[in-house]
Amino acid sequence: MRYVAPLKDMLFALNELADLQAIQALPGCDDATPETVEAVLEENARFCSEVIAPLNRAGDLHPSHWQDGKVTTTPGFSQAFRSFAEAGWQGVQHPADFGGQGLPKLVATPCMEMLNAANLSFALCPLLTDGAIEALMTAGSAEQKEAFLPNFISGKWTGTMNLTEPQAGSDLAMVRSRAVPQGDGTYRISGTKIFITYGEHDMAENIVHLVLARTPDAPEGVKGISLFLVPKFLVNPDGSLGERNDVQCVSIEHKLGIKASPTAVLQFGDHGGAIGTLVGEENRGLETMFIMMNAARFAVGVQGIGLAERAYQQALQYAKERVQSKDLEGSDKAVSIIHQPDVRRMLMSMKAQIEAARALACVGAAHFDIAHHHPDEAVRRTNQAVYEFMVPIIKGWATEMAIDVASTGVQIHGGMGFIEETGAAQHYRDARILTIYEGTTAIQANDLVGRKTARDGGQVARAILAEIRRTQAAVAADGNADLVAIAAQLGAAADALDAVVDYVVRNVEAEVKQVFAGSVPYLKLAGIVLGGWQMARAALRAQEKLQAGEGDRSFLTAKVATARFFADHYLSQAIAYRSAIVEGGASVMALEEAQF
Amino acid sequence: MRYVAPLKDMLFALNELADLQAIQALPGCDDATPETVEAVLEENARFCSEVIAPLNRAGDLHPSHWQDGKVTTTPGFSQAFRSFAEAGWQGVQHPADFGGQGLPKLVATPCMEMLNAANLSFALCPLLTDGAIEALMTAGSAEQKEAFLPNFISGKWTGTMNLTEPQAGSDLAMVRSRAVPQGDGTYRISGTKIFITYGEHDMAENIVHLVLARTPDAPEGVKGISLFLVPKFLVNPDGSLGERNDVQCVSIEHKLGIKASPTAVLQFGDHGGAIGTLVGEENRGLETMFIMMNAARFAVGVQGIGLAERAYQQALQYAKERVQSKDLEGSDKAVSIIHQPDVRRMLMSMKAQIEAARALACVGAAHFDIAHHHPDEAVRRTNQAVYEFMVPIIKGWATEMAIDVASTGVQIHGGMGFIEETGAAQHYRDARILTIYEGTTAIQANDLVGRKTARDGGQVARAILAEIRRTQAAVAADGNADLVAIAAQLGAAADALDAVVDYVVRNVEAEVKQVFAGSVPYLKLAGIVLGGWQMARAALRAQEKLQAGEGDRSFLTAKVATARFFADHYLSQAIAYRSAIVEGGASVMALEEAQF
Repeated sequence: MRYVAPLKDMLFALNELADLQAIQALPGCDDATPETVEAVLEENARFCSEVIAPLNRAGDLHPSHWQDGKVTTTPGFSQAFRSFAEAGWQGVQHPADFGGQGLPKLVATPCMEMLNAANLSFALCPLLTDGAIEALMTAGSAEQKEAFLPNFISGKWTGTMNLTEPQAGSDLAMVRSRAVPQGDGTYRISGTKIFITYGEHDMAENIVHLVLARTPDAPEGVKGISLFLVPKFLVNPDGSLGERNDVQCVSIEHKLGIKASPTAVLQFGDHGGAIGTLVGEENRGLETMFIMMNAARFAVGVQGIGLAERAYQQALQYAKERVQSKDLEGSDKAVSIIHQPDVRRMLMSMKAQIEAARALACVGAAHFDIAHHHPDEAVRRTNQAVYEFMVPIIKGWATEMAIDVASTGVQIHGGMGFIEETGAAQHYRDARILTIYEGTTAIQANDLVGRKTARDGGQVARAILAEIRRTQAAVAADGNADLVAIAAQLGAAADALDAVVDYVVRNVEAEVKQVFAGSVPYLKLAGIVLGGWQMARAALRAQEKLQAGEGDRSFLTAKVATARFFADHYLSQAIAYRSAIVEGGASVMALEEAQF
Repeated sequence: MRYVAPLKDMLFALNELADLQAIQALPGCDDATPETVEAVLEENARFCSEVIAPLNRAGDLHPSHWQDGKVTTTPGFSQAFRSFAEAGWQGVQHPADFGGQGLPKLVATPCMEMLNAANLSFALCPLLTDGAIEALMTAGSAEQKEAFLPNFISGKWTGTMNLTEPQAGSDLAMVRSRAVPQGDGTYRISGTKIFITYGEHDMAENIVHLVLARTPDAPEGVKGISLFLVPKFLVNPDGSLGERNDVQCVSIEHKLGIKASPTAVLQFGDHGGAIGTLVGEENRGLETMFIMMNAARFAVGVQGIGLAERAYQQALQYAKERVQSKDLEGSDKAVSIIHQPDVRRMLMSMKAQIEAARALACVGAAHFDIAHHHPDEAVRRTNQAVYEFMVPIIKGWATEMAIDVASTGVQIHGGMGFIEETGAAQHYRDARILTIYEGTTAIQANDLVGRKTARDGGQVARAILAEIRRTQAAVAADGNADLVAIAAQLGAAADALDAVVDYVVRNVEAEVKQVFAGSVPYLKLAGIVLGGWQMARAALRAQEKLQAGEGDRSFLTAKVATARFFADHYLSQAIAYRSAIVEGGASVMALEEAQF
């Protein structure tokens, strides 16, 4: 199925909601002129649609396969990755100093969405490399930066994240891999890492693993974990590739979806120890990994948006083409199923959720850019806090949404949706990983409750709520019937979120399990309210432009109607979440283990 | 993964909620003594766990395959079907006159659940045969009954339903297959039928197709469809198998799930026409098919419950075994993940939804039994109406629930859930067909709105609501804090359903699309309220028994707590559905087709 990038909606989110103009005005962001951004997005759209999207089904039919320690990726992937690298797409958001385009995250966000919509399996390789770049930018030494960043950014080498071990998944305190200092600045790494995305492949000449491990005298738990850089091929002082390092891919997984993306089991140090160098300080690996993870979590949220958009486009095309049953309001003959109210409801639910999540991700990216470029430290700090509050919501909510949307896409196809040849089922299978990797939804929700809400006593949450109230007032003041209805739903939903934040802050210590029993519902509630807030802002901007006679009338009236749908069908759920969280914590924990 | 039938909960639903004693007192049901029923269920549980369940994974790994018109099923299926047939399990609910056990549907329902939990793909074959039996019992001639029913019931032959054609899926008005009378009482059938479950296989010596087709002078639309019986092998007057009939399996589908169940494309009449006989009257095929479909829809709802139970058991076992992270309330070392509040919430959501749906299905089956066996015609009529109201809810709600539960099962497994070897992913794939076949959720919802609510002006719905109010009052009167909370949520949810029924009845003619835009939300709301009603009844009975010092204390306190969880987390959603349905119809239909 063809993929057409939703550029109009992306540009609306960038310009009208995330204030690209303000981002461009920041020091270091002046390249992001409206013309450049539009040109970059258009070129990225063309590349993703024409080069990457056609390989999506091939990846499902011809997964990456392992033989004798080597992984051969889906036919076409390697060449496509060359084209991707040569066009400079790995470097969109990375510094020009190391060969990147140095564009804001706000501009990289729609590019990421397009790549993921085109081909989730393919996009994972650059996504992980982005994480490795982020880690080195934050904590790498000058030598590490110089040796690795240009090769990452040019797409010559790729990066991986090595966290999980068989006994250490969500709980990194249980990491056992060892790193023994050699006295020459290097370490010998040994251990088994599992679930390593693109841990081995044939798309680049070197693969650089960022590996969590413990030094011999490290303390127990998460405070004894260090981060190491372990390349597949050692790098000579002149930058050329040296010897093969002691890391082997012993197998790859047979998975439900994203079959083209090789998920490796890596064995480090079976022959004396893989040689690695420390990134940052000893025992502080988790801090660096968290920076990398925040970037990766945001990116996985964007994966959800991209996957959902692809599933939506496929279902929409089917709904317009499949003729079945007469129109309910009377027609002589059968009509396309998009005339059926329930098909329409399903399509609206897909469209509205995608647009809400896209808007929220773009606004989150703008906060990141301000946090990184604004001259005023206080402004940077505030924006960083808002960004960090939003990351688990964007990751958790947008990926749960993606599963829902992909499943709805199957449903719209009826019986054909269950047939693999149709392609809708692939999205349903692919989407299922998104709420699991880079921290399950529960892990995101723990982060939201613990680090992002309880730690500051709800300050950031309440500051966002105050913004939501301002939007609510402005939307209510417009007078348009749709906007008035949206404002009413937004107000009620904000009340619900307010009550939940209050509940979390007040009870998290005394009733820790009851509060955490509501953590995922809280995350979903926050997603709905923040997403609905962005849709309300979108409706207001659309309405203003309509009244001023500006812009694309059809697009703008659709935006108002879609925002209204979101308010009617999603913001209306907020009150139910509030009740389940505030009143339903005890019943979650009521049974003894033996009573299950 | 092992399957252990939840006999304790099944017997509770039968005895305490569906009043098995009252059913046994009906004429023709006297064999269903408590001892017999318990023995039948235990034996069925043993058979399903030991013989059928172990083949579930094999079916996924070694799907049925087609070659030269023949379908070879998964190794082991054919022998297992022999055992199934020889033990008499096909005949549980069918008349003793034709070799069945003549037990009530109420007893057959948990048997169906167990078979489906054990192996959804396998269970489809008997499920379709049940449908064929139902059709012949209703509309077959004496000759047809005599020739076919004993062979169906003994499991010697199997049955299929042939409705769908490439252009006729949800809309049967578009059926084009033709049936030309030969003047000797037979017809020559020709046409292509798709999505025919077990349309061809190697598990029985004959396959008998029930086929919708049009006679040459039949009127257009659904009023010109007749039902024919078309065996794969013609049946000689002495009952022996005769010539091969002109029906060929030209291919089977490559599907997302239920891979062991062959989904056939059948070509009728390429060599002169398949010979068939009419079932019932010409042009009234759809009426008979609807009887068969009501039985099959109920059964698919039960499939949802079975599949969900299997996914739940697998996730529960993993949650008890997988050690990861410390207990939130403090522990020296890592504990099994069932201690984590969000894992607990997920397990409770699975358990509570399954128990609610199981209870509702059993109560629905009891209404069916009363409708078929009660001496008083008025009582029969009332119970038939309630049963028919419940069928789309049981089918639609329990199958949507099954997808949700199977997905939650994957989530509980974390990364392991995405690995096919674990088995959780198979449930997620298998479950996805349930909301599609035998009428999509939208088709169920159309039935609920049109035939079951609007047609009688909401009478049956309101009669059920009155029962719910009675339960609410009784539960509220108990005084136990959990029961008081349940009663409050049930009352609010009943108010919401009441408002929606009112909205549907008042607006279905003037605002047909807006009302149908809320049809699936209405179905889900009805599922939650009726399921919550049964859980409230269950809590009340459990509480009464606890106070009387009767029964299994651990089971009964768990029942109260699970009902409380259902009230807190599901009944609380009713108000959101009400709002989306009553206020959100217009925004579903607001966009022009070109605006998507």
